Amino acid sequence: MVQRLVWQEQRSTRHTASMLTTAKVALVLTALLVPVAKFLGVMECDDDPQYTEDAQMKFPEHYREWVYLSTGFDMSYSTNGMAMDHHMFDNVFVNPEAYKAFVATGKWPDKTVMVLEARMAKGKGSINQKGNYQDEEIMGFEVHVRDDARFPGKWAFFGFDGGKTGKMVPATATCYSCHQDHGAVDTTFVQFYPTLLPIAKSKSTLAAKYMEEIGAPSGKQPL
Amino acid sequence: MVQRLVWQEQRSTRHTASMLTTAKVALVLTALLVPVAKFLGVMECDDDPQYTEDAQMKFPEHYREWVYLSTGFDMSYSTNGMAMDHHMFDNVFVNPEAYKAFVATGKWPDKTVMVLEARMAKGKGSINQKGNYQDEEIMGFEVHVRDDARFPGKWAFFGFDGGKTGKMVPATATCYSCHQDHGAVDTTFVQFYPTLLPIAKSKSTLAAKYMEEIGAPSGKQPL
Repeated sequence: MVQRLVWQEQRSTRHTASMLTTAKVALVLTALLVPVAKFLGVMECDDDPQYTEDAQMKFPEHYREWVYLSTGFDMSYSTNGMAMDHHMFDNVFVNPEAYKAFVATGKWPDKTVMVLEARMAKGKGSINQKGNYQDEEIMGFEVHVRDDARFPGKWAFFGFDGGKTGKMVPATATCYSCHQDHGAVDTTFVQFYPTLLPIAKSKSTLAAKYMEEIGAPSGKQPL
Repeated sequence: MVQRLVWQEQRSTRHTASMLTTAKVALVLTALLVPVAKFLGVMECDDDPQYTEDAQMKFPEHYREWVYLSTGFDMSYSTNGMAMDHHMFDNVFVNPEAYKAFVATGKWPDKTVMVLEARMAKGKGSINQKGNYQDEEIMGFEVHVRDDARFPGKWAFFGFDGGKTGKMVPATATCYSCHQDHGAVDTTFVQFYPTLLPIAKSKSTLAAKYMEEIGAPSGKQPL
């Protein structure tokens, strides 16, 4: 069928470009049909959030191939820190479609999925003498998902401890109010994502509460 | 032209499936034409290493959308550490084609490009009280590239300080011998990439020198 289509394409354009090569035809076909297929939904990526019948979220297994946002080291929002006998890294990833939308608009679209992966840190090891690198051991996952039709507050958190599904964190939990009060963009901590913060600034999408917090003049986005 | 193609497709299949929907047609077209276009090279990604006429490497501008491997914090291969008045993160990315090949084989293919991005660390800031997060300020880049036809030792390092091109690090520099002597897989520090190390173990692609270093029995890959 492919050959026939290519041939039909060749025949129909013969009067305008008799030297059109097969590669050029394929380029034209691809350029035209891929957007059409995406528009029709047949090439939709499978990175949209998925749920089980009992309202758990399915773990986004391919998150390590998503777009990386940033890593924190031993971060804590409490002045006491966390009582840990080890160091820890937090890596954050977002689904590529949401990333592209953010780069274009400074906002997160519906169906944004952010995965926080907490990893054990190692110190001395192999030729590393100082500082820390990341271990194979994962301490846990937290997923922050925007699904406008599903959650009254648009966003929800899900916890995963290695299983293929995870339960929603109750909407009364402090993580919701903390993200609501301090998130730089739409309840997310874009202030900790160094490649996204400049985009939010330039698109003037920083949250009013966040601007107050950093002391930016009212109604004016910081430089 | 798209509508015509879809219509031609509909007409030609009418005798076998009169109820074929437009979406199904697009699915078939996409499934058939995307692989053809890829085969013909018209959808090839532009992530292969690129060079200038004076043998500098062009900086891979889209590396932040590549696959993330890991992050180190204040890592140092010297027992004295580095004399720094600040903390620092190192984020490592690899081009997606090379990543896929590594996942499948435990080895890096020709045209592998790894980008190390060094970022300034911040401590207290926004609601973060303890630990460190990543700042917008980039301290530098180092690129490790495999290009079999170009470099006698297959691999080369390039340094970038923010420019669009970077010079090759001379092959006599210690980074080459250090990676040669200590790299877990093919002169790369896979021992610091937590999702790749288990793959290298399972595919038995760990370097002999690395296995000696970690005390693995001769000729036997560690568990």
